[in-house]
Amino acid sequence: MSLELKPQKLSRESFASFGEVIETNDAERLIINEGTTERFHDLANIDVANENGKPLINIFRGSPRPRPIEIKMMERHPLSSQAFIPLQNKPYLIVVAPIGGSVGPEDLQAFEAEGHQGVNYQRDLWHHPLLVLEEGHKFLVIDRGGSGDNCTEHWFTTEQGTAHISL
Amino acid sequence: MSLELKPQKLSRESFASFGEVIETNDAERLIINEGTTERFHDLANIDVANENGKPLINIFRGSPRPRPIEIKMMERHPLSSQAFIPLQNKPYLIVVAPIGGSVGPEDLQAFEAEGHQGVNYQRDLWHHPLLVLEEGHKFLVIDRGGSGDNCTEHWFTTEQGTAHISL
Repeated sequence: MSLELKPQKLSRESFASFGEVIETNDAERLIINEGTTERFHDLANIDVANENGKPLINIFRGSPRPRPIEIKMMERHPLSSQAFIPLQNKPYLIVVAPIGGSVGPEDLQAFEAEGHQGVNYQRDLWHHPLLVLEEGHKFLVIDRGGSGDNCTEHWFTTEQGTAHISL
Repeated sequence: MSLELKPQKLSRESFASFGEVIETNDAERLIINEGTTERFHDLANIDVANENGKPLINIFRGSPRPRPIEIKMMERHPLSSQAFIPLQNKPYLIVVAPIGGSVGPEDLQAFEAEGHQGVNYQRDLWHHPLLVLEEGHKFLVIDRGGSGDNCTEHWFTTEQGTAHISL
């Protein structure tokens, strides 16, 4: 059995219980550099210092999955947040589930992000790995370097079934 | 008197004494997410933890300065690195000078960055504020939040003169 997931529009409000949306809309705005620059200030809670962790800066380049996009697993990072900021203005998909010990298809929520919207998953949030819609879509990714086991995967059991995204 | 600065091409090698270039070229590459994602790993030394600092994520949106672009001051952040990653694929300019107590026009080096290249200024490096070439060019900026005085400006004296960028 495969549960149908309809993506909702990504916004600060719709995503508030999962993390932050990184965008200029409704952000604190400072004017700096002799008036030549707007600074949209402090857009995400980068939570990577646990167990002597440090911030890592990476670029991810994604390929689309076959349609319909099947969601068969989720992962979480118990020691850190993880932020994805698109480097090209192209939409992409997000699948998350509330923090907790277990996760199944019925817990999932899907979002469609616009290309100017980044997202920061709060520490330990269940999320699906990167889901791009176009070949070669690149993201800046801010996560954690350091020792410790910082990735837990859960593959859905036969009893749980899977989900798929309706686009 | 205004010294002429000719920008050189930004590359890991040409910028090595000032910080890191954040790009996929020649980066450590890992294949993750069931083969659907390339991870270009650990591209910059984010050095923001001094005096209990924490990483801040911001978006800067810049406006071009009048031509010729006059360089009349430089700044440095004694407590942190600062990274700029363009969110649109447009070239921009960088002016830096070696770490040290003083800075003048003769110490400056200019670079022209391509739109797929980010840059991370090492802690305390003299650098000019954001220099964009097109209206509204946006960057993701990773710097430091926390207490402490983390910005020192030096405005060139009349004796020092200024510099300008030849494009």
